[in-house]
Amino acid sequence: MKTNQNIYDRACNVLTGGVSRNTIFREPHPFYVAKAKGSYITDVEGIERIDFANNMASLIHGHSHPAIVKAVTEQLKKGTAFTMGTEAEVKFAELMIERSGTFERMRFVNSGTEAVMTMIKTSRVYTKRPKIAKAEGAYHGTYDYAEVSQTSNPDNWGNIDKPNSNQVVEGTPQGALNDVVIFPFNDIERTLNILDQHTDEIACVLIDPVPHRVGLFPATNAFVKAIYDWTRKNGALMVFDEVVTYRVHYRGAQECYSVKPDLTAMGKMIGGGFPIGALAGRAEIMEVLDPRGKILRHPHSGTFSANPISTTAGRVAMELFDEEAVLKLNKLTDTAIHQIEEAVKIADVPISITGDGSMFRIHLQATKPTCYRESYLDTENKTIIKELLDYLFLEENIIMINTCACMFATSMTQKDVDRLSEGLLNGFKVIKPKLYQYH
Amino acid sequence: MKTNQNIYDRACNVLTGGVSRNTIFREPHPFYVAKAKGSYITDVEGIERIDFANNMASLIHGHSHPAIVKAVTEQLKKGTAFTMGTEAEVKFAELMIERSGTFERMRFVNSGTEAVMTMIKTSRVYTKRPKIAKAEGAYHGTYDYAEVSQTSNPDNWGNIDKPNSNQVVEGTPQGALNDVVIFPFNDIERTLNILDQHTDEIACVLIDPVPHRVGLFPATNAFVKAIYDWTRKNGALMVFDEVVTYRVHYRGAQECYSVKPDLTAMGKMIGGGFPIGALAGRAEIMEVLDPRGKILRHPHSGTFSANPISTTAGRVAMELFDEEAVLKLNKLTDTAIHQIEEAVKIADVPISITGDGSMFRIHLQATKPTCYRESYLDTENKTIIKELLDYLFLEENIIMINTCACMFATSMTQKDVDRLSEGLLNGFKVIKPKLYQYH
Repeated sequence: MKTNQNIYDRACNVLTGGVSRNTIFREPHPFYVAKAKGSYITDVEGIERIDFANNMASLIHGHSHPAIVKAVTEQLKKGTAFTMGTEAEVKFAELMIERSGTFERMRFVNSGTEAVMTMIKTSRVYTKRPKIAKAEGAYHGTYDYAEVSQTSNPDNWGNIDKPNSNQVVEGTPQGALNDVVIFPFNDIERTLNILDQHTDEIACVLIDPVPHRVGLFPATNAFVKAIYDWTRKNGALMVFDEVVTYRVHYRGAQECYSVKPDLTAMGKMIGGGFPIGALAGRAEIMEVLDPRGKILRHPHSGTFSANPISTTAGRVAMELFDEEAVLKLNKLTDTAIHQIEEAVKIADVPISITGDGSMFRIHLQATKPTCYRESYLDTENKTIIKELLDYLFLEENIIMINTCACMFATSMTQKDVDRLSEGLLNGFKVIKPKLYQYH
Repeated sequence: MKTNQNIYDRACNVLTGGVSRNTIFREPHPFYVAKAKGSYITDVEGIERIDFANNMASLIHGHSHPAIVKAVTEQLKKGTAFTMGTEAEVKFAELMIERSGTFERMRFVNSGTEAVMTMIKTSRVYTKRPKIAKAEGAYHGTYDYAEVSQTSNPDNWGNIDKPNSNQVVEGTPQGALNDVVIFPFNDIERTLNILDQHTDEIACVLIDPVPHRVGLFPATNAFVKAIYDWTRKNGALMVFDEVVTYRVHYRGAQECYSVKPDLTAMGKMIGGGFPIGALAGRAEIMEVLDPRGKILRHPHSGTFSANPISTTAGRVAMELFDEEAVLKLNKLTDTAIHQIEEAVKIADVPISITGDGSMFRIHLQATKPTCYRESYLDTENKTIIKELLDYLFLEENIIMINTCACMFATSMTQKDVDRLSEGLLNGFKVIKPKLYQYH
């Protein structure tokens, strides 16, 4: 029989670190999927686990949804990629624009990283400015400019009044760091002060409205409104990274703000389980990508962009994730949070939960964090989280994201939620001694 | 009945320019695929065309190859994306490393753009240097640094002894332009002189060994060797972009050079028709991506990277594209080139053909271009090429790439080649009057 260990041993001879994405890495070895259906994944050793990670929020209906499998199987026979268009890309764009009510034009790409990169480049063309501003700690994919200060730590983050622009990847050109302005999320006064030092230079202020790595809590309306007003006054764009957060409401996390972004990057769930990214926004801005223009200001293609497999799977997934499905899923997630908060009380542990819509994150601190620096995980904190997640994975057969977060899917039921809250209660008891040592 | 025009009319209301990738754009409207099989594509109006573009070189076996459809259909039922590993990524990496004979470690990503970006970032980490050097006119995807001077023109390309670093997308930060050194492809003396001005700054010299946009002719061994020697002497890496060219020989275009690149980016054909990119190379360099290191020097993941659909389709495609298949396809392509050269003689037109392996490009000039500036397409040249391609597409039902290039697939037969050379002969006669006016 194949074991996780022996597949990993082989992997170590061909993939750096034995993995192709660090996300799946775990000591002493990653686990390998044999099959998955709905909320359940069976590994190559035959162990079935319940999946609350859903490939980092990308599977809104869980695994192998029959309607998606059916639609993709049909398209497969007709081809997967062409140097021509397909109606699939048009139908999907129509659906997303109709759904949003504020998007005017779209473009599809292959990943969230590509979507954010294309959004930043589009902002630069439109404004003729080089810089972007982004929140300390926020993850926006691996484009150099988008990842600055995502992993800032107490040794290098600097004064909160003017957080440092730190590299994530060694060797990031100083020029790239100089072109990124960092602000503290949800801190209106400091953020406006910082932005005011770059009035004529900022192409766009990039916001993830519920940034996972900052702490997974929503931007306040006042914060978003303040940034919006600043961008109107100073000729910049306000752009949203909703690669993760579009799931939060029917029209994305942006639905609940009194002002809307000029451009939005999407990805993950809108691919229905297949590689995708998308850029959407105001027609007047998106026009810089138009090949019919006299000058091609922003040449943009991509061999697999808008391929009919991803756009077909994505359309089916979004049709199924209608208003009723969104509300139902968010309600189930709320129930889960309440049950876990009960478990926290029963276990009597200093733990809090933040989240929005169908996502939440568990923090090893009694008070909910309100900024990146408060939710920052030091080595000790990481060790206890790892112990909790290992317990859940190995003893309770529950899969969560390595930040101690859950991303729900419509395949989940109350029974699954009960299993999660019971598993967590047991887990809290396991880590309790260390938690009290730590605090 | 659906028409290409009415789908495009709908597309214009939702996609910028009515397209999601400029590649598929054509006046007065793009064409939309209903179904495709092998070398043939049928559009929504029922017109069947023969496809020599193969989605910009990405379909090495043509459309809907039964073995790929079968393998993907099987995997679909087991899931398409997980926060865990699959054996599919390991098997595919094993195959590619075994095939290459020089690759030691790999990582998969979602596109050629991501592969080149990851390769450049990896080079910077390893060398602790910010700059890259690349050839004028060479296309390497849409990462800012990789695209510098891809579209340089006579008004801005500057002295050939020191070509300018020009932006492709408006608003590219000056810092990015400053970090890219441009050299003239295959020009050893000038290239070494240019590189010598940046001895301590260059992380990697990026080479597409058969750069399509430069003119689609191979780098000479002397050129590659000279760059290799320079990088050894100056602590830089030599890295290859083989996203397009890995098809050229069984072990990639790099097979025929006396020295091998430190890192190689791949994409297109290795996805078997699905979104993919890959980075491969020396273990010692790739180690900067290893999550087991004490310091994570280059955090790297990607939600859809190494997903089991792309890695399964890719593995099957590469298994089928064995040494015998490569040789057979290259031979058929050679035959096509000879037949088209005959057509050139019969039509008596000033046309030449460059290429390598299973790809070639037709130039509207009697002498084969030897550098980007010689193969540069001015407006008049573009207009005549457009007329030729429109004639082929609309009258002969033949699809080629908009640079007047063909990328062959194993689905093609001698009959298809005859149809191509006959269609081109007719096309040459159509454009002949304008060609002589132009020259």
